Amino acid sequence: MAAEQDPEGRAAARPLLTDLYQATMALGYWRAGRAQDQAEFELFFRQCPFGGAFALAAGLRDCVRFLRAFRLRDADVQFLASALPPDTDPAFFEHLRALDCSGVTVRALPEGSLAFPGVPLLQVSGPLLVVQLLETPLLCLVSYASLIATNAARLRLIAGPDKRLLEMGLRRAQGPDGGLTASTYSYLGGFDASSNVLAGQLRGVPVAGTLAHSFVTSFSGSEVPPDPMLAPAAGQGSQVDLAASVEMWLERVCGHLGLGVQEPHRGERAAFVAYALAFPRAFQGLLDTYSVRRSGLPNFLAVALALQELGYQAVGVRLDSGDLLQQAREIRGVFRTAAAQFGVPWLQSVPIAVSNNIDEEELARLAQKGSEVNVIGIGTSVVTCPRQPSLGCVYKLVSVGGQPRMKLTEDPEKQTLPGSKAAFRLLGSDGSLLLDVLQLAEEPPPQAGQELRVWPRGARESRTVRPAHVEPLLRLWVQQGQLCEPLPSLAESRAFAQQSLHRLSPAHRRLEQPALYQVALSEKLQALVDRLSARGAL
Amino acid sequence: MAAEQDPEGRAAARPLLTDLYQATMALGYWRAGRAQDQAEFELFFRQCPFGGAFALAAGLRDCVRFLRAFRLRDADVQFLASALPPDTDPAFFEHLRALDCSGVTVRALPEGSLAFPGVPLLQVSGPLLVVQLLETPLLCLVSYASLIATNAARLRLIAGPDKRLLEMGLRRAQGPDGGLTASTYSYLGGFDASSNVLAGQLRGVPVAGTLAHSFVTSFSGSEVPPDPMLAPAAGQGSQVDLAASVEMWLERVCGHLGLGVQEPHRGERAAFVAYALAFPRAFQGLLDTYSVRRSGLPNFLAVALALQELGYQAVGVRLDSGDLLQQAREIRGVFRTAAAQFGVPWLQSVPIAVSNNIDEEELARLAQKGSEVNVIGIGTSVVTCPRQPSLGCVYKLVSVGGQPRMKLTEDPEKQTLPGSKAAFRLLGSDGSLLLDVLQLAEEPPPQAGQELRVWPRGARESRTVRPAHVEPLLRLWVQQGQLCEPLPSLAESRAFAQQSLHRLSPAHRRLEQPALYQVALSEKLQALVDRLSARGAL
Repeated sequence: MAAEQDPEGRAAARPLLTDLYQATMALGYWRAGRAQDQAEFELFFRQCPFGGAFALAAGLRDCVRFLRAFRLRDADVQFLASALPPDTDPAFFEHLRALDCSGVTVRALPEGSLAFPGVPLLQVSGPLLVVQLLETPLLCLVSYASLIATNAARLRLIAGPDKRLLEMGLRRAQGPDGGLTASTYSYLGGFDASSNVLAGQLRGVPVAGTLAHSFVTSFSGSEVPPDPMLAPAAGQGSQVDLAASVEMWLERVCGHLGLGVQEPHRGERAAFVAYALAFPRAFQGLLDTYSVRRSGLPNFLAVALALQELGYQAVGVRLDSGDLLQQAREIRGVFRTAAAQFGVPWLQSVPIAVSNNIDEEELARLAQKGSEVNVIGIGTSVVTCPRQPSLGCVYKLVSVGGQPRMKLTEDPEKQTLPGSKAAFRLLGSDGSLLLDVLQLAEEPPPQAGQELRVWPRGARESRTVRPAHVEPLLRLWVQQGQLCEPLPSLAESRAFAQQSLHRLSPAHRRLEQPALYQVALSEKLQALVDRLSARGAL
Repeated sequence: MAAEQDPEGRAAARPLLTDLYQATMALGYWRAGRAQDQAEFELFFRQCPFGGAFALAAGLRDCVRFLRAFRLRDADVQFLASALPPDTDPAFFEHLRALDCSGVTVRALPEGSLAFPGVPLLQVSGPLLVVQLLETPLLCLVSYASLIATNAARLRLIAGPDKRLLEMGLRRAQGPDGGLTASTYSYLGGFDASSNVLAGQLRGVPVAGTLAHSFVTSFSGSEVPPDPMLAPAAGQGSQVDLAASVEMWLERVCGHLGLGVQEPHRGERAAFVAYALAFPRAFQGLLDTYSVRRSGLPNFLAVALALQELGYQAVGVRLDSGDLLQQAREIRGVFRTAAAQFGVPWLQSVPIAVSNNIDEEELARLAQKGSEVNVIGIGTSVVTCPRQPSLGCVYKLVSVGGQPRMKLTEDPEKQTLPGSKAAFRLLGSDGSLLLDVLQLAEEPPPQAGQELRVWPRGARESRTVRPAHVEPLLRLWVQQGQLCEPLPSLAESRAFAQQSLHRLSPAHRRLEQPALYQVALSEKLQALVDRLSARGAL
């Protein structure tokens, strides 16, 4: 497969974004005459993140982009040559120069699928040397994307379907591309929009944002706007001096709220007017630069009511400090009385947006019944996944030349499952998920309605299961370097993720102390594991 | 300053890697005629990470690279237009198209400096519109870099100066660039090398790596090497069949260790031979694919002794599972007896490398007195900073048009320090750090030997201090878009970081429950804070 034009310009992941040992092993394989041996690797995780019982698979689109563009440039090969022994056979570097992914086949869970421990997110097969080289970049691309999607899905489950969730963590992300990945996959996992403009430009993520405290503090109130005039929303009628109209409204608002007209900060009001002049149809007030009650709120109301006279409707307020739930309640109360006082019904339901280090616990509080919060901006907690900042995916060799391979190691939980495999999801008659089963690729698929004996992982006993439906889990996306079908759009994967989550039983979907979802081995696969373990994986 | 050729190709951070509200505020400033107002922002953190009392400043080189390349391309401006109101004045977009950082001035702590809460890592001044737009990318570039450098410095303090620390977390990083940033700044913070090839190619970080379990499991032992012959190290003498020589040595090794000659895994041995043929001068054995004691260790010894006959010296062994400290002790014991038995003294001191989810606690165990571990590979713990995955830097407006600006908010700890400032480090006569002082830019610098009254942050009382030495902290790096002096190399910043840490007193350097380092305000700055707070920041 030839490197092709990448719509994102140079892809963030490049072939040398890999561990040096992939290159030293490549030389080892090449020297042993094994570069073209057919090998298969599986990419999976060993434990669900965040103490939950599920993960969402994500990152496939980045992997496909990476594979299609995979070529070592001359400078790359030269750098590798500088890191390898000086007497390395030049023919090895010729081999590297010619390398691409035209021999690589990828099966994978569709993005947004439920994923469970040990079930491959990706199966990558092809020439041993090249599929080995792919290990680190594929892990890097899948692991964090899946972690973020899972984290976002958890936050969406906590928030419920109606709150608008905005990802705004770019500044707290672990590097620029960490931010881009987070914005992309938090959207896939269930967020509504991101503050990250690049994610909008490159990935089509809806973007959102209005103003920050610096905008507010930048105004003292002594500035003279070059053009304070605003035309009515309908376009007809004469322009109005918005600043002057706001001052008039401020008196009425302060009277209604029992505040002195000098109390609200005039710089803040000037900032609101400036923002309203630029965004008359999308005016949002950031209320807490000085004091919400004595300044931000009256200033917002004065500007919103002045805009209303011209036929514009303010789109919201935002809070970034203090007790967000309590303040939202108070603000909603003020909106209700002001709506009645000034005869502006829409004012009661102006969306209230909040942010400020919101984690799962605080989100649950903000999403509780009766909460007046409508929009929740989350940064650090969604982007860096503080509860578990890495999913810990691994990429393990399962077969070479058609022969199964297994690692034993000194830690039983680090043992691998040998052989090229298929994976199925077994469902009950009501469509509920029963368990996932891994079996050898050559076995016939489980049949709906037929009893099946399986070995749940971690259990000492086998069990039987009679599925009403059987779904194959892994789909062929890339065959010998060719994309087999177009990848779903990000929005489609996002919808699929929500569907997937809805099929999970409440006991498995629960975020704290959930019931563990079973992954089981077929009898043949279990027998192979036992045989290879007993023989020391010979 | 014209966009210039970036040695890394397209920089990871692009102008649109920003929050949408930077663009909406830009329009607001422009509409208010304030795009060119001179403004100053400070980038700082509010709390030291990881429960410690210090941080290391880092990321400046990425900021400078970003600023120098900062230009909005046509496609960027078009995307912004699509996200802004359709009736936005086209002249605004012309303004954006012409935008660069030729009016931007940056003062900053040199990379590798000790940084404390509230002391600016960066001071960015220039036209209001452009310095506002820089907020998100600068935060993204500084925050994670400084977090990683600090994390690496802590790990280095725990490990002591003699252990070799290898960063190998790329696969666990939060996105591809997260990996590149982590590799770069963990080196700056005190690591010795990284597994990340791209960090070597682009940043000059020393790279290291040998082989993984997949290399070992890919061999069954039935493979026929196309060329098992190896010439002696000295280049003189006839070639030897390494595989055959290893089989001979295996018998002697097994005899010495009391093992049956069939016990060591032949696939593992074939893998070691293959690796040794490719890297005779850099042979390392990965011991735990099957069983360290019964397979990995005897196979390693057989290959190492066969190589030794040809004049080559093995460079190490690696363990990736089990009790690393205990195994290292046992392995060292075997090396000692084997060195004596086979008359190969260097064998006793073959470096032992370990990895496997090593965190601060496990590192302390591995670095304890008497430990036989020499090289420690750390992935997830250094790269994702699980204890605190974000530093939480902020970027706050401190002055516009020469007038100080201050945010109050509903959370006292989110209040900002107004005014354009200078920062100094006061030292005792023995060179020990006393405290950092922030003062207004127009104040004369503190004088060595003169008593100074300051207000420590968070304290209710002022105190006096008489420094023996005074160091200015912030250096002018970029003036009106021009780089004032070359940035130090990464290796120079790394050395500076270690010097900086050595100057910190043990009480402040302590990683758990350290003494807090004082940051204080000058009397004038404190008076300004009090005045603006009392007046509601008017």
